[in-house]
Amino acid sequence: MPRPDTRTLIFPAPPVAGRVWVGLSGGMDSIVLLHRLAHDPATRRPGLHAIHVHHGLHAEADAWTAHCETFCATLGVPLQVRRVHVDATSGEGLEAAARHARRRAFADVMQPGDIIALAHHRDDQAETFLLRALRASGPDGLAAMRPWRAFGSGWLWRPLLDCARAAIRSYADAHALPWVEDPSNACADADRNFLRLEVLPLLRQRWPHVDAAFARSALLSEEASGLLARQDRQVLAGAATADPAALQVGPLRDAGAPLRARALRRWISGLSLPSLPAEGVAQIEAQLLDARSDAQAEFAWQGAIIRRWRGLLHAEWLRPALPETWQTVWDGATPLALPDGGTLALEGHPGKFDVPLSLSARVGGERIVLPGRDHGHALKDVLQSLGLPPWERRQLPLLWRGDTLWAAGDLVLSAAADAWLRERDARLVWQRG
Amino acid sequence: MPRPDTRTLIFPAPPVAGRVWVGLSGGMDSIVLLHRLAHDPATRRPGLHAIHVHHGLHAEADAWTAHCETFCATLGVPLQVRRVHVDATSGEGLEAAARHARRRAFADVMQPGDIIALAHHRDDQAETFLLRALRASGPDGLAAMRPWRAFGSGWLWRPLLDCARAAIRSYADAHALPWVEDPSNACADADRNFLRLEVLPLLRQRWPHVDAAFARSALLSEEASGLLARQDRQVLAGAATADPAALQVGPLRDAGAPLRARALRRWISGLSLPSLPAEGVAQIEAQLLDARSDAQAEFAWQGAIIRRWRGLLHAEWLRPALPETWQTVWDGATPLALPDGGTLALEGHPGKFDVPLSLSARVGGERIVLPGRDHGHALKDVLQSLGLPPWERRQLPLLWRGDTLWAAGDLVLSAAADAWLRERDARLVWQRG
Repeated sequence: MPRPDTRTLIFPAPPVAGRVWVGLSGGMDSIVLLHRLAHDPATRRPGLHAIHVHHGLHAEADAWTAHCETFCATLGVPLQVRRVHVDATSGEGLEAAARHARRRAFADVMQPGDIIALAHHRDDQAETFLLRALRASGPDGLAAMRPWRAFGSGWLWRPLLDCARAAIRSYADAHALPWVEDPSNACADADRNFLRLEVLPLLRQRWPHVDAAFARSALLSEEASGLLARQDRQVLAGAATADPAALQVGPLRDAGAPLRARALRRWISGLSLPSLPAEGVAQIEAQLLDARSDAQAEFAWQGAIIRRWRGLLHAEWLRPALPETWQTVWDGATPLALPDGGTLALEGHPGKFDVPLSLSARVGGERIVLPGRDHGHALKDVLQSLGLPPWERRQLPLLWRGDTLWAAGDLVLSAAADAWLRERDARLVWQRG
Repeated sequence: MPRPDTRTLIFPAPPVAGRVWVGLSGGMDSIVLLHRLAHDPATRRPGLHAIHVHHGLHAEADAWTAHCETFCATLGVPLQVRRVHVDATSGEGLEAAARHARRRAFADVMQPGDIIALAHHRDDQAETFLLRALRASGPDGLAAMRPWRAFGSGWLWRPLLDCARAAIRSYADAHALPWVEDPSNACADADRNFLRLEVLPLLRQRWPHVDAAFARSALLSEEASGLLARQDRQVLAGAATADPAALQVGPLRDAGAPLRARALRRWISGLSLPSLPAEGVAQIEAQLLDARSDAQAEFAWQGAIIRRWRGLLHAEWLRPALPETWQTVWDGATPLALPDGGTLALEGHPGKFDVPLSLSARVGGERIVLPGRDHGHALKDVLQSLGLPPWERRQLPLLWRGDTLWAAGDLVLSAAADAWLRERDARLVWQRG
């Protein structure tokens, strides 16, 4: 392989072919990436495009956009400019909000199989690695940015991830490329800027190759992460149930603690719940997996919850119970919004109930006459025999006709409710909040 | 669990019971550890000892030793003082040489099952994690120091590995413990001191919990490392041969590249050869595993070598070939030292050869008359049919009686040599250099 000179940058072709979009900020890195790809016939052939996101956050933003338009015109590369609204009040921080808005814009322009190419380079990767370590990550996080991964309806590609910033600068100089001063850096968060401007320069004094070293640690972590993911999936497959949000405790107990901790984290992230903190793993180890205890055990974090019940672990967003004193009246004509965010609807166009029903939360001691029976059963026993977990029972709206329990959500119908609905080919539908 | 106050330090008991030796430098950390363990009846019962290593490197070393003696006498803990010689010329650096000498002294005093307790704490662990990242380590290296591992004839234990330096300082103050200013820090290498005095204080300005974060990244890396080691061993078992220094290429090819890279590194380190560099893994991937090429392929590093030959990978220390022009005469009375470090001996007390033999290296074209045959064979064909790898052929000493090839090492005997040795119940023994 020839030694790269300053006029070129060498990186592997993407693993699959496709139309490439370059995310173009107008700064040096993305200007270099677009120029490099525009001079690569293999990339150009299926159609090379650029996308510039106008965040509307900086006074200079219009100038950056104009700069991108000029540069793309020179190269003959079609450019799409997307104006996005960055929600600075979302609580995630301005930089994260801007990144999310940008990513949504990228995903929007993609056709299936398209590739978004971003200009992150090795020095960015070193910063990301260190940020992840500062956030106490294991190998999955220390893997930092992936050179290639699924994104939107296609792929995200970082061709320059193994190129030093200095090599990119040399390329820009050698080709006399015009770039504007770091619009993306202006968006970098304070943590990253502190690393870039203070910490990494200090480390480079003693370890000139710190960026390459951290990037290689990230690569080795990524390899480990991939190998471990295979093990995790085996554990999760062994503990799976028909419900993705429920795992069997038994097979989990048979895996060792470190493997179990990883599998639990993967399970939770696969359900799109917030990352399980270390404390949660410890609590699950100490309490939720304890075979001797029959008591219901749970761990809640950031609005999510894991509960053990009847040999299973259940994970979900924490849902509020119905207030004990809640009461209302419903005629069935339109769906009813419940105070916990759920809904109750009468489907199949039967019109209204004969008389409006009273609704309440469970307080205990209710009895119901089931279809085909002539005396009442304790609702508690009926719910238990249905296997309804206790936390779902606390959300269950009760429907009364006068003093008689007519139905419990859509799960338990009285003889009267069953007959009334059957006659009208209708059904009750309860959606949990 | 009660919140730890400044008068105590909480850590888990060691996984196995045993007599504990505290490695005592006289600095704050090890003084605190000894004090803490001396007040723990469970540690004290099987016998608590201290060992102080006098490196003879510092003018104050005698004062440190006296300080340790006084402190141990106060606690009623028996102390062994070991004077060691640190070989500053070993090329590994003074700090590494001192550590090796210290470790040898620890191993020396241990009885089987004894536990050496060292006072490394969480801030040390954070430094080690960062040092490993600066050396481009993957999860195995990022795991940094282990809290418990096999050592010498027993175990090495780091009870304080999850305790902050500040907590240790508070303990020392609360108990008014006497300690000398950091004799171990005086030995710390320049890299570590740069991190301790420059980099970590800078990081703490923005991330006060950096030590805890890095220590947790190390712990997660250790867990991953353990899980991956299990996979590595499976791959190596699948590719094993009767010779630990040889692996089958076929099964290695079936494992994916990341798993194969890890397994190769583990194989090499298990043979006590120098760590396989990334470049070596790449060469093996590109060349040594190539099924199409019949050419002999090899990769050499730091005096070690991996070679592919006949469907196997062989790893060993690189051994010199015999010089092509080498010649000598040997009467068989005493073993002969070969120029490559090997030896040739005549065993079974037959005395000398009838006439001294001439010795030379192979140059090619030699022929030999094998036992039971009446015409010569090409030596090359005989060696090939024996399966002797080419690199071993280059070390093979030839023994001549006049112009007639009498033997090739101890591997190929002529009819004459075979008869002569049989008559005397003797044998040739060749040891490779």
